[in-house]
Amino acid sequence: MFWIPIERSSPKPLIRQVYEHIRTQILCGALQGGAQLPSTRELAASLHISRNVVLEAYDQLLAEGYIESRAGSGTYVAEGLYFEREQSRPDVSLALSTATMRPENHLIDFRSGLPALDLFPRKQWSRLAQNVYTKTEPDLFGYDNPEGRPELRTTLARYLQRTRGISCQPEHILILSGASQAFSLLNRLLLSPNDAMVIEDPVNYEVQLILSFSGAQLVPVPVDEHGMQTDLLPHTKRPRCILVTPSHQFPQGGILPIQRRLQLLQFARTVDCYLAEDDYDSEFRYVGNLISSLQGLCPERVIYIGTFSKNLSPALRLGYLVLPTELVERARSIKRLLDLHSPSLEQLILAQFIEAGHLERHIVRMKRVYQKRRNILITQLRQHFSDQVEILGDATGLHLVARFPRVRFTAETIAAVEQAGARVYPVEQHAVVKGQHVHDIILGYSHLSPAQIEQGVGRIKLAID
Amino acid sequence: MFWIPIERSSPKPLIRQVYEHIRTQILCGALQGGAQLPSTRELAASLHISRNVVLEAYDQLLAEGYIESRAGSGTYVAEGLYFEREQSRPDVSLALSTATMRPENHLIDFRSGLPALDLFPRKQWSRLAQNVYTKTEPDLFGYDNPEGRPELRTTLARYLQRTRGISCQPEHILILSGASQAFSLLNRLLLSPNDAMVIEDPVNYEVQLILSFSGAQLVPVPVDEHGMQTDLLPHTKRPRCILVTPSHQFPQGGILPIQRRLQLLQFARTVDCYLAEDDYDSEFRYVGNLISSLQGLCPERVIYIGTFSKNLSPALRLGYLVLPTELVERARSIKRLLDLHSPSLEQLILAQFIEAGHLERHIVRMKRVYQKRRNILITQLRQHFSDQVEILGDATGLHLVARFPRVRFTAETIAAVEQAGARVYPVEQHAVVKGQHVHDIILGYSHLSPAQIEQGVGRIKLAID
Repeated sequence: MFWIPIERSSPKPLIRQVYEHIRTQILCGALQGGAQLPSTRELAASLHISRNVVLEAYDQLLAEGYIESRAGSGTYVAEGLYFEREQSRPDVSLALSTATMRPENHLIDFRSGLPALDLFPRKQWSRLAQNVYTKTEPDLFGYDNPEGRPELRTTLARYLQRTRGISCQPEHILILSGASQAFSLLNRLLLSPNDAMVIEDPVNYEVQLILSFSGAQLVPVPVDEHGMQTDLLPHTKRPRCILVTPSHQFPQGGILPIQRRLQLLQFARTVDCYLAEDDYDSEFRYVGNLISSLQGLCPERVIYIGTFSKNLSPALRLGYLVLPTELVERARSIKRLLDLHSPSLEQLILAQFIEAGHLERHIVRMKRVYQKRRNILITQLRQHFSDQVEILGDATGLHLVARFPRVRFTAETIAAVEQAGARVYPVEQHAVVKGQHVHDIILGYSHLSPAQIEQGVGRIKLAID
Repeated sequence: MFWIPIERSSPKPLIRQVYEHIRTQILCGALQGGAQLPSTRELAASLHISRNVVLEAYDQLLAEGYIESRAGSGTYVAEGLYFEREQSRPDVSLALSTATMRPENHLIDFRSGLPALDLFPRKQWSRLAQNVYTKTEPDLFGYDNPEGRPELRTTLARYLQRTRGISCQPEHILILSGASQAFSLLNRLLLSPNDAMVIEDPVNYEVQLILSFSGAQLVPVPVDEHGMQTDLLPHTKRPRCILVTPSHQFPQGGILPIQRRLQLLQFARTVDCYLAEDDYDSEFRYVGNLISSLQGLCPERVIYIGTFSKNLSPALRLGYLVLPTELVERARSIKRLLDLHSPSLEQLILAQFIEAGHLERHIVRMKRVYQKRRNILITQLRQHFSDQVEILGDATGLHLVARFPRVRFTAETIAAVEQAGARVYPVEQHAVVKGQHVHDIILGYSHLSPAQIEQGVGRIKLAID
């Protein structure tokens, strides 16, 4: 007797239930090769279901080769389909439970580099998006070139020239999926295993991770309050590249003086290597004018890394490289291998957003907001800690560094602060040579409201006092 | 006499002109360290410009360290800023002219894998986008998790279960920037230099390129009209992974029968390796029912690669992996290193698009369109070439293979066809072992109008007859 358990209340369609049951029976060997199946009429009658359901299930099994139909004789199980189940593997829900954990809401998180998300220019963006999605040429919905939309590269070249003193043509720009992809790409573009790459120390921990993936040797050069100490550049090594954050050293916040910039360029010439300039948040400068880019001094040696994650939104995943001419073609082919190209329509929306002047206006507006938040943070730190705190790197960007000469930020201290309801980030986490920055924490303020900043500093005080 | 050439008609602001001129003079050594600059008042008067312009230019030079101000004594050029220009590099416009070349419009391009771009569901997409951009939580504009939006993974898991017989939970899904990123990721996830990876022969040329980037050894197994010839699997090798396109072999179009699927799984167990199932266009099946995925037979061994490039639009750059539990965490960290995560808002739009049933309706609609185009292509081929052409792999997908036993598709033949106004793609381009497929070309039809298809086949006829 051929029986199939039918669950009428199940969301699974009846056809699928019949198909899956027979398939499972065949694969587990309960139905063996050559066995005859009941006719569709018989099976439908015995299960009290429509004959069409059985017909469709049989069709699927036929199409996939589980059963064979012999003219005038019926339907048979195909040969050689027994397939023993493997021992089952560890349970999913268990293995993945930590993967999707997020910080609890009540925690005040001083993470760095997060714009004020509630102030994203939704209306303007969504109006432009509407326009692009409904009116753009059909071709835009197809495959595109790896280097990115010409509209975006053209307006971006002008914007960078105007605001950052970048010297480039649209052809030097490669649109990427955020600055992290820029680092992955540099990896492949410049580094082979055992190549040396000079980095600042400290330097963003994630960037270290990405770069060390290439098997390259990372050579740290210490920073002081003015950025990389260029007279400590290792003349005995022949690095392929030197990575710097000259406009706002991450995390210490120093701004590289012109003398050091020139020393860096001179060194790069002597050893014949490239400079990679990571310019992640320099548009937010609160003291005096914007500092010109390193790239503008020597476009043929400097690879400029830009992002829209800080001045707009990280969710867009849009960043870019400005490359020396001789690297453009190879970088383009690597981008192609990585993911063909970045999403076209969002690039077009962004191009129109910049072209209409929205980006510059948004930055001006955000600068006012962030400056206010920065000032509140500084005032609060002074109020709670007076001369027990030093403040570094606060002239630019979305974070500052607070140095507490009497506190050592060990894992225990950080945990105690978290216990008090605030999350802070030790500079040590980003240090290559450990032990030099134990008194320093990074405080990102751009995404926190004045009330959160006040409350947050109060909580830090509670924990480390 | 200190003179600065001022161009009032230039789009460059006056401040910038003054700043750049002085900067250049300092860097080229015309203004040497210690030299005194004229006072702002003097300079403004001699150039007939506002004193504020000079003040701002000096401020910028001061901020960047080019000049120094000594109290009560004036402004001086800083020391050590001479910077010799390097010999200039090759001209950009020249080097890049080929990079942005696109096929001319009059050409009828039978490229494969391109959906009908003019039928993208713009209205529905743009309505959902409007909704997401204006109403979603501010958090969505921040950094996200590497694995992708939970909304998309949840609805996608249900969709894949229903339509492809995929066995997974949302936790097994990793959202990626297109299927090409899936291959880059597999590279890092599974392959070390000299590891063996079994591929079909022929197999997508771009995929070969991406995979060979890892330094892995690609071991080809020939395909016939039913896909990979699984009895030729190399028992002497110990591959880390076997890449297959079981629903619609690319490019030959075979559908892997259940016996071969089981043989493949058995082999994978014996040598303890993974299977990667590239399921790029199987939703468009014109003959009978959809074929169930290989993944559904053995979720713990099969890595399923999916994309929205064929069933929706390549411009979205959205694809995904369905992973065996034990690979999920590592794949997630690799995605993080590649580009942190894929764009969040577009993921959310897509999730709502699938959840509302738009994707399935769109596929049904497109299937009708593509089937019609396929039939026209087949009819045209028969009309023009009668029994001089064999048609392969036309049951599914967005392309078919036309075999002309009397024609050898050399570079010259392809050029002749292009001369006649049509572009066709030789299967040989995708072959690992060359010389086996010289009579075969790939004809993508999904993006071409009936008129274009008719005209295109006519042009092919002209060229190869």
